[in-house]
Amino acid sequence: MKKVAVIITDMFEDSEYTEPAAAFTDAGHELVHLEFKEGKMVRGKRDDTPVRIDKEVKDVSAADFDALLIPGGYSPDKLRANDNAVDFAREFAESGKPIFAICHAPQLLITADVLRGRKLTGYKSIIQDIRNAGAEYIDSEVVVDGNLISSRHPGDLPAFISESLKKLEK
Amino acid sequence: MKKVAVIITDMFEDSEYTEPAAAFTDAGHELVHLEFKEGKMVRGKRDDTPVRIDKEVKDVSAADFDALLIPGGYSPDKLRANDNAVDFAREFAESGKPIFAICHAPQLLITADVLRGRKLTGYKSIIQDIRNAGAEYIDSEVVVDGNLISSRHPGDLPAFISESLKKLEK
Repeated sequence: MKKVAVIITDMFEDSEYTEPAAAFTDAGHELVHLEFKEGKMVRGKRDDTPVRIDKEVKDVSAADFDALLIPGGYSPDKLRANDNAVDFAREFAESGKPIFAICHAPQLLITADVLRGRKLTGYKSIIQDIRNAGAEYIDSEVVVDGNLISSRHPGDLPAFISESLKKLEK
Repeated sequence: MKKVAVIITDMFEDSEYTEPAAAFTDAGHELVHLEFKEGKMVRGKRDDTPVRIDKEVKDVSAADFDALLIPGGYSPDKLRANDNAVDFAREFAESGKPIFAICHAPQLLITADVLRGRKLTGYKSIIQDIRNAGAEYIDSEVVVDGNLISSRHPGDLPAFISESLKKLEK
């Protein structure tokens, strides 16, 4: 059993949270939801899916977890405007532990400036941002580059979840 | 009287459209709203403000207009995923005609790859994207760099509108 941090706020893409969350939980892993206020309910942009925040991101460190899931939608745009969220993402990337990033999730990693020299994919709208951040954009349903697993959009969820579960089993 | 293109789609930041639009119209300028489908109603993310699309962006060129307004919110993220919108923004930037860009608007210009060597501002979440695009980010209520006028967020609207109107009067 692994402990997976989920960094998430309002307007996340519902399925990019609900489907990995269900798969990770079914496999026996534990999820800890991080945002700016413990006990707050954040909601998805499409189906209004509610998610309860377990801990404030400023009160935790990468050492408390085995992996990090970053759902997409407009949640990463909001998270990257918060210094504590950016610092946590940077610390996580530097720890070498697995990061599962889908859709707009690389936006948070771009602000953390941890993508130079990496290979990844992401949502079409942020392709230029990924390249400008010094990374190589690959148009594929899932890209595995060391600890970084990335996918483009909800249609890639089966491949994204499969590779993420493999990483958690290691 | 000048002819101002407004490139806009759903989830725009309402006031970043309504306030410049009212000021430009009051000053006698004409607005032409561009998106992907003529006659479509697009809506703001906060107040559901409706805007009717006048023309498809693929059917116009920079030569048809005197200036371009790009409201913020999540509209620019959607526009930059459309090649016709990106091509139009690039053509406009290369024409040297005024571009009024607020909040997330620089995202469209980043995908058009027209910000290298420019000075501008924008919403906090996209600061790193602006820098990675080869531009200098300036934390100011309004930045005027040649034909490019930019502001950070709705709180900057008075300065943004004032400088934009000056440019239209020239």
